[in-house]
Amino acid sequence: MKKVGIIMGSKSDLPIMQDAINILKEFDIESEVNIVSAHRTPNKMFTYASKAKDNGINVIIAGAGGAAHLPGMVASITTLPVIGVPVKSRNSIDGWDSVLSILQMPNGVPVATVALDGAKNAGILAAQIIALNDNNVANKLIDYKSKLQQKVFDSEKDL
Amino acid sequence: MKKVGIIMGSKSDLPIMQDAINILKEFDIESEVNIVSAHRTPNKMFTYASKAKDNGINVIIAGAGGAAHLPGMVASITTLPVIGVPVKSRNSIDGWDSVLSILQMPNGVPVATVALDGAKNAGILAAQIIALNDNNVANKLIDYKSKLQQKVFDSEKDL
Amino acid sequence: MKKVGIIMGSKSDLPIMQDAINILKEFDIESEVNIVSAHRTPNKMFTYASKAKDNGINVIIAGAGGAAHLPGMVASITTLPVIGVPVKSRNSIDGWDSVLSILQMPNGVPVATVALDGAKNAGILAAQIIALNDNNVANKLIDYKSKLQQKVFDSEKDL
Amino acid sequence: MKKVGIIMGSKSDLPIMQDAINILKEFDIESEVNIVSAHRTPNKMFTYASKAKDNGINVIIAGAGGAAHLPGMVASITTLPVIGVPVKSRNSIDGWDSVLSILQMPNGVPVATVALDGAKNAGILAAQIIALNDNNVANKLIDYKSKLQQKVFDSEKDL
Amino acid sequence: MKKVGIIMGSKSDLPIMQDAINILKEFDIESEVNIVSAHRTPNKMFTYASKAKDNGINVIIAGAGGAAHLPGMVASITTLPVIGVPVKSRNSIDGWDSVLSILQMPNGVPVATVALDGAKNAGILAAQIIALNDNNVANKLIDYKSKLQQKVFDSEKDL
Amino acid sequence: MKKVGIIMGSKSDLPIMQDAINILKEFDIESEVNIVSAHRTPNKMFTYASKAKDNGINVIIAGAGGAAHLPGMVASITTLPVIGVPVKSRNSIDGWDSVLSILQMPNGVPVATVALDGAKNAGILAAQIIALNDNNVANKLIDYKSKLQQKVFDSEKDL
Amino acid sequence: MKKVGIIMGSKSDLPIMQDAINILKEFDIESEVNIVSAHRTPNKMFTYASKAKDNGINVIIAGAGGAAHLPGMVASITTLPVIGVPVKSRNSIDGWDSVLSILQMPNGVPVATVALDGAKNAGILAAQIIALNDNNVANKLIDYKSKLQQKVFDSEKDL
Amino acid sequence: MKKVGIIMGSKSDLPIMQDAINILKEFDIESEVNIVSAHRTPNKMFTYASKAKDNGINVIIAGAGGAAHLPGMVASITTLPVIGVPVKSRNSIDGWDSVLSILQMPNGVPVATVALDGAKNAGILAAQIIALNDNNVANKLIDYKSKLQQKVFDSEKDL
Repeated sequence: MKKVGIIMGSKSDLPIMQDAINILKEFDIESEVNIVSAHRTPNKMFTYASKAKDNGINVIIAGAGGAAHLPGMVASITTLPVIGVPVKSRNSIDGWDSVLSILQMPNGVPVATVALDGAKNAGILAAQIIALNDNNVANKLIDYKSKLQQKVFDSEKDL
Repeated sequence: MKKVGIIMGSKSDLPIMQDAINILKEFDIESEVNIVSAHRTPNKMFTYASKAKDNGINVIIAGAGGAAHLPGMVASITTLPVIGVPVKSRNSIDGWDSVLSILQMPNGVPVATVALDGAKNAGILAAQIIALNDNNVANKLIDYKSKLQQKVFDSEKDL
Repeated sequence: MKKVGIIMGSKSDLPIMQDAINILKEFDIESEVNIVSAHRTPNKMFTYASKAKDNGINVIIAGAGGAAHLPGMVASITTLPVIGVPVKSRNSIDGWDSVLSILQMPNGVPVATVALDGAKNAGILAAQIIALNDNNVANKLIDYKSKLQQKVFDSEKDL
Repeated sequence: MKKVGIIMGSKSDLPIMQDAINILKEFDIESEVNIVSAHRTPNKMFTYASKAKDNGINVIIAGAGGAAHLPGMVASITTLPVIGVPVKSRNSIDGWDSVLSILQMPNGVPVATVALDGAKNAGILAAQIIALNDNNVANKLIDYKSKLQQKVFDSEKDL
Repeated sequence: MKKVGIIMGSKSDLPIMQDAINILKEFDIESEVNIVSAHRTPNKMFTYASKAKDNGINVIIAGAGGAAHLPGMVASITTLPVIGVPVKSRNSIDGWDSVLSILQMPNGVPVATVALDGAKNAGILAAQIIALNDNNVANKLIDYKSKLQQKVFDSEKDL
Repeated sequence: MKKVGIIMGSKSDLPIMQDAINILKEFDIESEVNIVSAHRTPNKMFTYASKAKDNGINVIIAGAGGAAHLPGMVASITTLPVIGVPVKSRNSIDGWDSVLSILQMPNGVPVATVALDGAKNAGILAAQIIALNDNNVANKLIDYKSKLQQKVFDSEKDL
Repeated sequence: MKKVGIIMGSKSDLPIMQDAINILKEFDIESEVNIVSAHRTPNKMFTYASKAKDNGINVIIAGAGGAAHLPGMVASITTLPVIGVPVKSRNSIDGWDSVLSILQMPNGVPVATVALDGAKNAGILAAQIIALNDNNVANKLIDYKSKLQQKVFDSEKDL
Repeated sequence: MKKVGIIMGSKSDLPIMQDAINILKEFDIESEVNIVSAHRTPNKMFTYASKAKDNGINVIIAGAGGAAHLPGMVASITTLPVIGVPVKSRNSIDGWDSVLSILQMPNGVPVATVALDGAKNAGILAAQIIALNDNNVANKLIDYKSKLQQKVFDSEKDL
């Protein structure tokens, strides 16, 4: 079974990143949560990224705010797919700093960036990647999509 | 063997999207290229997205410019992972329109967004996803990473 | 009598979109409200857009936030005039994402975009379009304009 | 037969605005072109806007750059639908000034804004409005849409 | 004695524009306050601007928000100096719309733009203009400058 | 007769600032041109600003690019009206730096900001200020305005 | 022992700038706090900057908001290193004005800019500069870095 | 004698970074140039940053474009002062990505950011830091400042 590593630059990112944890639980995908700061714990970040594959991690979700270097640095070390979640932290310039620091990676080192504070979508994207070789998850994604749709239908009823 | 579907909103996006085609070829990953416009060929887009999985596509790379709806719309229809490439088209407002139209997807429907004109990284990201169950590609990614590194070392020599 | 179709990507857009509903009521123009999400109910969106004309809709007002694809996608399917309302949703990057996703449509597929959260103006614009062949509405617009003016005059009185 | 009034703030906007003139010609819709500057010919602008309806104009397309006041001011005077084309003029701050000056109209006075330099779409939008009561134009729009589509299909052939 | 005309697009701009009224009172400069909306009362705006000089107005301060056309339109009609105050109104995109709509005037028709919500500075600027031929006001400006300075000195005392 | 002091942070700003010099010549207003850099010649800037009034200057036009401190610093020293011209210099971030550095002055110290590279308007604004006590200039401004208008009329002829 | 001069444009910047004061105290580095406004006390600013070196100041930290000229002007006068703190003041356009006014200094006159409201980092940067010739401070910085790291480790414990 | 380490993410940054090399040479300050990419040579970057102090480096100048992580990552590892130069690389979104990725560092890990492409100022800032304990450099900085000034005086002569 594939496992997702969820990391974030600071515990203050947890309220946002919890969405990724929850949705993966909903898809019965194992995840492992760590606080790993590119700027405050660079060694831990290096170790985390270089060992991730050996530690059974298949997809990494990394959330960070401001000059958000965590997703890109992890992607520079591992060849696993890295999903970046720009977090709108305190003192952020409206989120632009985290968005651009994560998105605008140079050729050779991609980060799969999702929307500002879009940790839920990071979890779904990880599930979509895992589903490529896991019919169980694939079916759950199809269910999830039809529930999304149903909720819109229902919301229209009591208009 | 996994296959990548590469689509773009207009043939004028090809010079940018060619980078994705080339890098996948470099990784010996099969790809299939189509011009699919969300706005000018909505039916084709719908058919493409709903049949992609049955047609043997595993990962979709979608490039578009301006109010770039192609990646997000394809992601709304399929459960395959969709990688979005914001293209800085003519008349774009410095690329902001394509970046934001692709990145800022609502909860439930992720698009893995790469940098502006970052088609090469889209290809590498697709390879990283495929590598999760393909040791061949996994090894090629490790090679690629060390070549990237070597090129930097070499560039320093004749400083 | 012409009819306006008002759609929005999520029920959470209703507090904004209500302004369009109300102003059309004020002009005695029939409207029909639906929740249609490009991303969560793509089939419903397709059906809605392709049947709109046959269902007696003449003008479509579509509101959406974030990577707002609803107005543009509906415009890609129907030849009816589509008015787009960028909604400043939660997690939006200050509204720029919805504005640019709706405004920057490629040549061939226009969306008549109004201001951020400008649903009232969307309703008035629909009325102006309908008024081209409806003297009743045309006269109400003239009245409305002079009331707008009168309110400014009145506001000055108790300065 | 409905007639479209096309105005622009300066003759230097003509290369952009020509797209609107051409596409209307393609749809056999009569148009009338004038140079009307809100800032340099305010009286002419006032006269133009207040007489437009009596002069047989049904839809107004107004293009302007920089602090682009022409579309909004014309909309403040007439009750006809006004389509605004933000033009990226010399000295513009990347087009943001014209976009925001035209788009962000206050409640009560809508301008149907199209993309930066999107004069072609302004023409198509005008045609869509006219088509509501003109089957000829309506059919031409359907033709146009399928030609748009066909061009995408064709462009794929020689990929 | 010179007189300043203070106008604003809506009474809701008064809390901001009051700063201009107050500072002019502090300099014993006569002012006259009106609600004049470019978009809702275009005729009044035209009359106001064309009669301003004859009505004894020497400097005009015009505040407006969103697609703020009032300062620029008044400047297009009168040859009096017009000071524009961008107001950060509700629904404004962080104030950028009012700033750019007022600042980016085309060659030939200047508006003296002050900071976002900077009505106080508009008043001081009007005083500086008037002071060129009024020693009384000139002296008050010198006093004002030294009081500004003194306040900084004092604020440091209880650090 | 009133005199205008034109200063700029660098000789490289002259091609832009020349527009101010020329238009003042056109209005027969005396001007005096100096290179005064807030950052490279702070003492000269201080002397210039504190002596300007005594040296017979009535209005100051200051152009600068990047972190453009010249207009604001001069305004902090003199009580004369200061008109700021944001210049889009090399390395500028699309002009935003000069615009915001000049426009966003704190309460107490206004700078009359004109459009990016809008030196011509700075000259006209200076003329408008001088015209308050100079009928000659006042009449020239009225002439200028009608010539502006006439040019638009003429440009329409050969449409 | 080296001393840091901390200045700010207004006492209202103190809540932000206090972070610099505190962190320097934590490193046992002497600091001296003054309110010095480039715009309201230009003479004091000049004196401060020209005497700073003689007064035993070695590094200057200058915080300011809006059109923030203080750091750049001080840097234009002294050859001491100047650290600029962009403060997100009231009426600021989301902090962009202060950031760009401080960061975009012309060649020849650098300001070491830190993040928006980043006074703490300004203090640490000053300590890093002082540490180049002060082993005591150098060791404290190493301690500080490991405490930063430890805090991240600890925060993970109660996840 | 103090030594400056100059690093850049790619050899393509050299034309910009050369300005830092040259100005340090002008000040007779030893510098050492390396290509160190955070994303392509993360190990080299780690080694560089952790050994810098032992290798006799006192100040680090790091230039990078796009999602520029080099300056911040080096600052996360060393306690030496790090000066960051945002480089406007190809595919950059007008430089905003490099500026924000370098500037918006979290509390605890400062980067002394200079203007976009401002490598010359990075060199001068390094010199100012070194000058705190090197009278030779301190005097050269005073000379440099007066030459800057003189050049402005001279440029005025042939106006």
